Amino acid sequence: MADPDAVAKQFITYYYTTFDGGRQNLHPLYKPTSMLTFEGAQVAGADAIIEKLVSLPLGSLRHNVSTQDVQPIENGLLISVTGQLLAEGESNPQFFTQTFLLKSDGPSYYVQNDIFRLVYA
Amino acid sequence: MADPDAVAKQFITYYYTTFDGGRQNLHPLYKPTSMLTFEGAQVAGADAIIEKLVSLPLGSLRHNVSTQDVQPIENGLLISVTGQLLAEGESNPQFFTQTFLLKSDGPSYYVQNDIFRLVYA
Repeated sequence: MADPDAVAKQFITYYYTTFDGGRQNLHPLYKPTSMLTFEGAQVAGADAIIEKLVSLPLGSLRHNVSTQDVQPIENGLLISVTGQLLAEGESNPQFFTQTFLLKSDGPSYYVQNDIFRLVYA
Repeated sequence: MADPDAVAKQFITYYYTTFDGGRQNLHPLYKPTSMLTFEGAQVAGADAIIEKLVSLPLGSLRHNVSTQDVQPIENGLLISVTGQLLAEGESNPQFFTQTFLLKSDGPSYYVQNDIFRLVYA
């Protein structure tokens, strides 16, 4: 397997750049078996996940990653991210944490599990 | 497999009650293959993990869980927790996020992966 830190770094950069540029473009990262829990709401499958993300009542967003941790697991990687979320026109960021379980699929990876939570400080 | 929500709830209650009562008693939850990343520092194996937790320059602590999310994975559970950490004699809590990957081991579970981060708001 490729270096976990390098894969995680590349994934995180790609994920949030794509999210902030147009959430619908995240579709190829998910599979029919993938699961998302977003603020406690659970959806399954790439189509439903993208539908959920696109339907969020959020305008343009910017994710700033504060910390990223990765551990290798069987056929994949476990990634934990903390960061700040800034909505367009807002000056106060919200804090978030997101956990990804990536599974390898030949030379590439997909998101099998995704859990997102805002942290209210 | 047992109900993921029920297992996660029971695990989380047990984990933080035990941590706050005496961190060294968490040893049976980890295996020689387990991994912990604590504030970016990585250790592997139950012995080293407990040594790390016991060595933290923290007095008596209380964890208050704010949110807990769980997803079933192959032979296990993925759990993401957010909460507040209150040190003895302190009135300002610190916010934290913790990710656990539990693997089933017959009828019980152990912690294969553990990632802890403070969230600075």
